[in-house]
Parts: sequence; structure tokens; C-alpha cells
Amino acid sequence: MQVRLPKRAFADALAVLERIIPTRASNPVLTHLRLEAGNAGLRLQGSNGEIDLELAVPAEVEGEAVRLVPGQLLGQVVRNLPGELVELGLEDEQLFLESGNFSTRLATAVAEDFPPLNFEASAVASLPARELARALARVRYAASGEDYRAIFRGVQLEVHPGRLRTVASDGFRLALYDLELGLEGERRFVVPARSVDEIVRVLERVEGDVMLGVEGGHLTLGAEGFRMAAALMEGEFPDYERVVPAEFALEADLPAAALKDSLKRVKVLADRNNHRVDLVFSGGRLEVVAEGDYGRGVEALEVEARGETEMALAYNAEYLLDALGPVSGTARLRFSGAASPSVVQDTEDAGYLAVVVPLRV
Amino acid sequence: MQVRLPKRAFADALAVLERIIPTRASNPVLTHLRLEAGNAGLRLQGSNGEIDLELAVPAEVEGEAVRLVPGQLLGQVVRNLPGELVELGLEDEQLFLESGNFSTRLATAVAEDFPPLNFEASAVASLPARELARALARVRYAASGEDYRAIFRGVQLEVHPGRLRTVASDGFRLALYDLELGLEGERRFVVPARSVDEIVRVLERVEGDVMLGVEGGHLTLGAEGFRMAAALMEGEFPDYERVVPAEFALEADLPAAALKDSLKRVKVLADRNNHRVDLVFSGGRLEVVAEGDYGRGVEALEVEARGETEMALAYNAEYLLDALGPVSGTARLRFSGAASPSVVQDTEDAGYLAVVVPLRV
Repeated sequence: MQVRLPKRAFADALAVLERIIPTRASNPVLTHLRLEAGNAGLRLQGSNGEIDLELAVPAEVEGEAVRLVPGQLLGQVVRNLPGELVELGLEDEQLFLESGNFSTRLATAVAEDFPPLNFEASAVASLPARELARALARVRYAASGEDYRAIFRGVQLEVHPGRLRTVASDGFRLALYDLELGLEGERRFVVPARSVDEIVRVLERVEGDVMLGVEGGHLTLGAEGFRMAAALMEGEFPDYERVVPAEFALEADLPAAALKDSLKRVKVLADRNNHRVDLVFSGGRLEVVAEGDYGRGVEALEVEARGETEMALAYNAEYLLDALGPVSGTARLRFSGAASPSVVQDTEDAGYLAVVVPLRV
Repeated sequence: MQVRLPKRAFADALAVLERIIPTRASNPVLTHLRLEAGNAGLRLQGSNGEIDLELAVPAEVEGEAVRLVPGQLLGQVVRNLPGELVELGLEDEQLFLESGNFSTRLATAVAEDFPPLNFEASAVASLPARELARALARVRYAASGEDYRAIFRGVQLEVHPGRLRTVASDGFRLALYDLELGLEGERRFVVPARSVDEIVRVLERVEGDVMLGVEGGHLTLGAEGFRMAAALMEGEFPDYERVVPAEFALEADLPAAALKDSLKRVKVLADRNNHRVDLVFSGGRLEVVAEGDYGRGVEALEVEARGETEMALAYNAEYLLDALGPVSGTARLRFSGAASPSVVQDTEDAGYLAVVVPLRV
């Protein structure tokens, strides 16, 4: 085997794989990367048992070989190489790697021990990779980091006729994103939020469409240059649609950035336990207020309000900031009172909707 | 009291003080900042019991007041302010702060409880602040982070006629820096390395000279706009000069950056316990070699060598990299063999000298 390839493409691919390949694993073979050179070029595979990933790297290849190489180590070596080009070879079962004045020989292992990866599946949908990445990234924050209910540590993907929805919740707040797409059928499946982070990272590198598939407890993603599989979680989200209110007493539009900045300033003064900030609407103005052991902070913002013009609500500032996170232009806030769920939307991105429940005060 | 000042200058000063003011302290008054407004302008003081710092901030001041304000909180509030200007006032013993549409009232405490700070001292030397910062920053890495011998957790400053020296060591390596200055007398004192970090940070902000003083176990530093004091460590460095060799069998010059990059590449393959890299000089070339459980890495570099041209030495790669850290141009390496201390110097900065002991192999 003789392989010649640009250092940058090699290092980029390894950086993505390194995020998945564990440094330690009960099955030590998973700390390795499977390197396959042949007619199809150079292919790199890694897995942590929950996510499988294969990346193709542009390379000139002569001969063929399949070996396992310590994953993190190869990443570190390649990242630091002095030259623009890297040459790889196999000598006495060692991977020989040369770049500039630097050369190294790395121990390798036989590929037979590597677990079979789950890239085969029946297709569910084909859709633009970047849009899927956006739909996942926009809601991921609302998934639970805690053990409260296992299903809430995942992001649900729903295929509906004409639409793909992503939804995440931790039981206290909820975020969903609708993509209008020419899809068919009805499917729902839940992907662990940790896997969603890696999927988003990979999809953001992909131009064009990605093929989505599901088979035997796995979600698969594939396009030119990569194949990926993620184990699904068992179960389904509870019926969340009933907590999304349809009617509101007050609707207010204001620049998301100004509200986020104001919340960040004011929350410094908030109670350290519940992070309470108050939103007080009155006569076309919004006052953002917090008060804690050390003092009180207040800021006035201009808003465009419709409906009831006087209303006071209290929130956990962190939850409100999270819900505003994906909104970059004008935010639309919709309220039904201090005891009802509130909604945050993006006037420039109709797909996004977040539900935040006011604090009981 | 009415104070008006630019947000940026206020936030910058608070950021420096926040590094010193503890978030928690057995004496809770130390978590506060002492704010003094009067004819002399606005002065801010903070202390962690080991370092005392006072910064003057340009401000328009009417009336006068001295109060204690929660230090970290004030820093967070000011950093996030929306306007370019900040107005401060005192109302009912609360600090009133306004900027743009934001306003806040913060609880304050009486200043009487604040400990007296140690800014008084008899002058030892006056010297350029940036040069003192450089002399301290260049050697600080060699101080010990461990409890091995308390004195090695400090940096020694030595005043000699015509020269100021800084020196740090952890017993295994040593770094010193000589500044040629019109100084008089002989003084030695040891400053805790943690305090050195904060002193360097403050000195880097100072234009012109700084006045150095010593009094009753404290080092003081002062110039226009700031006063600082740091508790000294008890004791003196052991006689380190005898470990700095004066004669060498091999002297080699090479670009510091190339050697550092090479060490970083090769050390990835090194033994995880002793980080051993070998330097092998032969016929005007230097081979940097490491070998561990996963393989072997080697890189050849051109060097300009004088004296014995064949020599092999082994080092802890991290120690060698640390010693090369302050060298930016051409490094001069001086060796007396595998069992004698080696010296690293900077051909473009005669003040710097580091001693690294080869590994026993």
C-alpha cells in the first residue's frame, strides 16, 4: 500500500473522527481507527458503540490494505506534521508515515477485530444536509442533561407528509423546528442528544443532500464522502402538542439581540437559585427586572405589542435566554398570562418555536 | 457622591481586580472591592490577603464617599453595560449605577471593615515596568507547582549593583533572566509564583517606570495609576549558581521555532511516563527521536554546531519545550555530555538562560 494525500484533508477528517473515537473503552478495539486503502481511495472508520462514522478522504492510492491504528494518536501526529503532503505505507505491519523531514512508524492491528458498522438501512427521506443540521441544532438545547426521564435526553425526529419536525424537551421547556420538505409517510424516532451534536458537526461539512434511513434501532445518514449511523433511543415523546398554546392574550415583537443583552445584564442581580427575571409590559414598553441578595437591576426596552398591553411575567432567565438563542432577527413573544406557557418565535424563520413556562411566584 | 466615567476604563480596571478578589474567603470582607471617590478621582482597591492592588480610574467626581461593593458582582454588571458612559451615585447606602436604559442598585457595606493594605515601603529600585514584567514572565515557568520545597514555588528577585536578576527553579530545572540596570546595593527576596502572574499582568498595562520597594515581608510596586503589594516568601534560594555550567563540549545554534515544532511532533510518540526525546548530534545534523508503546518518530534538523560534533542526549520533552518557550529567534544549546546539565540561551536576548538536566538513561 502506498498512499499520498494532502495533510489538511487528512487532519480535518481525523479531527471529526477523534471526537467520536473514545480515548478509553471497555472494548479497546474501539480506541482504534479503521484505515482502508484501495481502489475506492482512502476510507477512515471510527465508532464509540453509539455512533459509527466513515469518512472518505481524497488520496492517491496504490495497492490495498486494511489496518487498525490508534485513533487519537494518529490524529495528534497528523495535526502536527510539518509538510503539506503526507505519504503512508505499510512495513512489517507498522504504518509508515512521512511528511517533510519527519517520519514515524506506528503500531497497527488486524482489522478483523473491528466491530461491523451499521451503515445499511432502508431510506426514509432525502433532504438538504445543512437544513437538517439547522433543524437539529436549533432545538438541541432543550433536551435534558439529567437523568429525569430518559427519553428527554434525546431529540425526536418526525417525518410527516410534506414536513420534517425536530423536537426536544426536558419536561420544563420545549423547542421544535419544522422543515417544509416533499416527504411522505409518518415516522418518529429519537436520537440521543450527544449523538445529535456529532451529527450536526458532520452535516455542516456536507454540501447538497443527505439520505436519511432507519433500520433495526439505528438512524443512518449518508452522502458523498461519508456514512454515519446512530443508535436510536427506545420510546417516543409524550404528547407535547397539547402544551403548545394556540391562542394568546399578548403578542410582542422586539429585536432578539437587545432582549438577550438586557437579560444577560439584569440576570447578574437575580436570585442565585431560581434565576428569576420579571418581564413587565406596560404601555408599549417592556421592563426587564431582577432582584436578589445584592441589589436590583432594571432595563426598559421598546416593544411592538398587540392585545392586552399590561402584563407581568416571571421566568428563569437561563431558560428564556436558551429559547431566544436561535433567534437572530426580530423575536415574537406570545403570552397568555403568568400561569400559562409562553411561546418564543422567530419572525424571520417560521420553522422555529419554543415553549417556556413562567415561574410560579 | 456623583461619578461619571467611561465604561471601558471601568470594566478594564475591574477585570484586573476581579482576578485578585476572591469569590469566597474565610474573611468575607475580602470578596468586596473598596471604592473611593473624592478629589483624587476614583480609586478601586482589592485584596486576597496575599496581594493588595489599588487602581485609579479616570473619572469626573463630585463629592466624596468610601464604600465596599461585592467585587465579582460589580465586575459582571459593568462588563455587560449597554452604554459607553457609566454614572455612579450613592442612595440610602446603595450604589446606584446607570448606563443607557439600564440601571441598578447594589448593596454596599461600610469601608471600616476593609483590611489596611500594605502599600508603604522603602524604595529599592526604579525600573521600566515592561522590562520587569518580561524578566518575571520569562522565568516563571520554572517555578514548582508542587509542595516539594516551599521556596521553589516562588520566583527570586535579586538586586545587584548594575543588574536585576529573576530566577526560578523546581530543583530539576532552572531559568534566570538578567536585566542590566543602574541599580545599587544587594537585596534578595522571593515572591510566590501565583503573585508573580498577577504582577506581570498589571505591569504589562503600565507605561514607563515602576518603583519597587520592600518593607516588613512585602514587596511593593507603584507608578501613576496603581499601587500593588505582594507578601514575600520566607527564605532564600539555595546556591543555584554552581549548577550553571561554565564550559561546554558542544554548542549548537538553530531556529527555536523549528526545534519546538519538531519536539511537539515527536513527543506524541514518546513514552507516556518520562516523555523522553533523544537529541542526536552528528555531522552538522540534529535528529530528534522518540519511541514509545505505539511506535517511533524521528525528524532531522540542520544545526550550526561547534566543538564535539557527535553527541546523544535524552530529555523530558516538556522540560526542553518549557526552556525554549521564551526563545523566539535563534536558540543556542550548550552541552557537556549526557550526564551534565545543559544550557538553553537566546542569541537575540542575552538576559535569558535556562538549565535543563538530561534524563538518566
